[in-house]
Amino acid sequence: MSSPLRLGIAGLGTVGIGVIKIVQKHAGLLAKRTGREITITAVSARDRMKNRDADISAYRWEDDPMAVAMADDVDLYVELVGGDNGIASDSIKAALRAGKDVVTANKALLAMHGQELAELAESLGRVIRFEAAVAGGIPVIKTMTESLAGNSTTRVMGVMNGTCNYILTRMESAGLPYEAVFEEARQLGYLEADPNLDVGGIDAGHKLAILSSIAFGTRVNFDAVEIEGIERVSIDDINRASDMGYRIKLLGIAQMTPRGLEQRMSPCLVPADSPLGQLAGGTNMIVVEGDSVGQIVLRGAGAGEGPTASAVMSDIVDIARGIRLPVFGQPATGLKPAQPARTAVPASYYMRLELQDKPGALAKVASVLGEAGISIDRMRQYGHSSDSSVPVLVVTHKTTPEAIDFAIEALPRTGVLVSDPVELRIEEV
Amino acid sequence: MSSPLRLGIAGLGTVGIGVIKIVQKHAGLLAKRTGREITITAVSARDRMKNRDADISAYRWEDDPMAVAMADDVDLYVELVGGDNGIASDSIKAALRAGKDVVTANKALLAMHGQELAELAESLGRVIRFEAAVAGGIPVIKTMTESLAGNSTTRVMGVMNGTCNYILTRMESAGLPYEAVFEEARQLGYLEADPNLDVGGIDAGHKLAILSSIAFGTRVNFDAVEIEGIERVSIDDINRASDMGYRIKLLGIAQMTPRGLEQRMSPCLVPADSPLGQLAGGTNMIVVEGDSVGQIVLRGAGAGEGPTASAVMSDIVDIARGIRLPVFGQPATGLKPAQPARTAVPASYYMRLELQDKPGALAKVASVLGEAGISIDRMRQYGHSSDSSVPVLVVTHKTTPEAIDFAIEALPRTGVLVSDPVELRIEEV
Repeated sequence: MSSPLRLGIAGLGTVGIGVIKIVQKHAGLLAKRTGREITITAVSARDRMKNRDADISAYRWEDDPMAVAMADDVDLYVELVGGDNGIASDSIKAALRAGKDVVTANKALLAMHGQELAELAESLGRVIRFEAAVAGGIPVIKTMTESLAGNSTTRVMGVMNGTCNYILTRMESAGLPYEAVFEEARQLGYLEADPNLDVGGIDAGHKLAILSSIAFGTRVNFDAVEIEGIERVSIDDINRASDMGYRIKLLGIAQMTPRGLEQRMSPCLVPADSPLGQLAGGTNMIVVEGDSVGQIVLRGAGAGEGPTASAVMSDIVDIARGIRLPVFGQPATGLKPAQPARTAVPASYYMRLELQDKPGALAKVASVLGEAGISIDRMRQYGHSSDSSVPVLVVTHKTTPEAIDFAIEALPRTGVLVSDPVELRIEEV
Repeated sequence: MSSPLRLGIAGLGTVGIGVIKIVQKHAGLLAKRTGREITITAVSARDRMKNRDADISAYRWEDDPMAVAMADDVDLYVELVGGDNGIASDSIKAALRAGKDVVTANKALLAMHGQELAELAESLGRVIRFEAAVAGGIPVIKTMTESLAGNSTTRVMGVMNGTCNYILTRMESAGLPYEAVFEEARQLGYLEADPNLDVGGIDAGHKLAILSSIAFGTRVNFDAVEIEGIERVSIDDINRASDMGYRIKLLGIAQMTPRGLEQRMSPCLVPADSPLGQLAGGTNMIVVEGDSVGQIVLRGAGAGEGPTASAVMSDIVDIARGIRLPVFGQPATGLKPAQPARTAVPASYYMRLELQDKPGALAKVASVLGEAGISIDRMRQYGHSSDSSVPVLVVTHKTTPEAIDFAIEALPRTGVLVSDPVELRIEEV
């Protein structure tokens, strides 16, 4: 048996404690599977006195993550502090320079500074692994980097933020407005300290940027992700989409096109009976399409102690087994900057318009859509609302985002709308 | 850049040609991802003159796979000949003894002789990889061996034979009897040379035995798999299951219980709107449950040139990258024989009974079920058939397989059945 692999763990939140529990509970199993002991030497967190769900008394306590990252008796630095800068970034760099490998779950840091960190690690002959950074327990990083290595990836997409999916699912099942479910989620502890990271689509956008880099061999470019959160998804839209056989999901899609790399994270309609449409609560789903393998779908828990710790452990086990790969699957210096491209692939769109209840209103709308070159697949007019406006739903035939933008800009000029028009893309995935 | 990895490929059927196409098409991509060139030195197949969908003129032809396996200019032997013995086995052993690593898609060989081959490889410091042996392009071997290495697996299950799933899906969609669709599948080339391997559940049973070994750290034991094929699935059962909200799938389930290892491959009912119920055509789905990760679901094409070649390539890339693991995820000498156990977990069952159309028949059936301790969830009596028998469907509450066996044996003794009773287990997955 080889020498033990000695971990130093910074950050003892849900995931850190989950990792410690697995190392303690499955010591024998891990030794059989890796051929060596996996031990924990030192830990660090903000509050030493906090009650924790695991016995950490056998590990050296450090107040400063930097001390864990650079300790002589640590082989592998496990960064679970979080944040796209500051101590997370500093301690990872220090660990690499001190000759340690790094495992992290820090999607924000990788999305913002992944290229710099990867180049540093590779120049030093160290590895950074981050399976837990995307989609919790789902092995999407390994699948894309290793299992699909014989493929040219054509598209990657999915539902990557469990909190948003919980909110959207719960709005539909309980018939509650966004604000009420948002408040529930906050009380359940499902939201990040800055909730905009979740509901604003930022967290999911970070994940998509990381997947894009692996999929297309490009430098991670979070700033180029078109992001729209779920804040403007109303219970009206959820109910009316449901009437027409759809569900609303915060869906990320990245694909390489002749014009450049499209990366988009936005609320979309998907068929209610599709695998993505059926995804409830905190579950995540990633769909990867490769030129040989076709479509691979991965589903599992996107967050939570056990699933996320399982992903961190898979990286630790890989390193214990001597598996050493470039951070993004190929040398970071060879990753090319991608030309960002706005979404141009045509799709059907859902539109909800509140019209004044007077003759000719619908004709004016139809006329604008016609001018925009948009043809209508289905139109549904609901009964009068109390305020004497008339809700009208439109599902278009496939059309370009440009045509939709044109229509959305032109529609208010008809003078027959009582509120801003709502449009959502329909993805037939 | 390291020295090239030189492949020798035996077997130039669909999968072999698929691998050659990927090596040729993605030479640059593979070099970037592995840091070395992947080349093909020698190939072998039964018929040199056959028209093939790839240019193999640059590779040395060998009539004998053994010559490929032992060639000095081959680093990695890719065995795609198939068969659970004979030349496949002999050439793999020869390759290992000659110091080569091995990649194979040969589920039958691994299910029957996996332990012996793994021990040989590991004693010689060589690796055998077999991602393509189970579920085509779905990365289930890597997911279980690597991504879930921090978990104790509690259950693994899934649909693992695309041909059977095609037949069952097609029977339902076209309303055709088994025999007609079987003949269609044969003409489409979907069936193995010995069709019993597919429709008899043998091929899927091989795959389940392999997954069990990895999941539970036990010696692969195909003989202990309870196998039932799809031959007795009738269009009547498909239609009636559908009426009650179910679909029939050839489903494999392996789980470790206090009594031993249950491994079963059999036609089951699953809810029609569940992910497994929605699986159509040749698609496969594997569900793995671990103590930390919860449930992970993997879906993709279970067969075909591209998907299977993609899986073979993932093994080749791993070896090119220097990833070296024990064959079943932990040293073969440490794998324990598992005590085989018959399925004992209670489940609901579907029963179809053809009763004589006379008073009291139903009462006799109900009485037998009562004696067996089986309580009825739903019962549905259909109109009289032409032969004056009455079809009766029963869905039971959860009961044991023993109780069902008791009932199936006792029912004919009532004298009111006009044909053998049909029973199928309902898995709520």
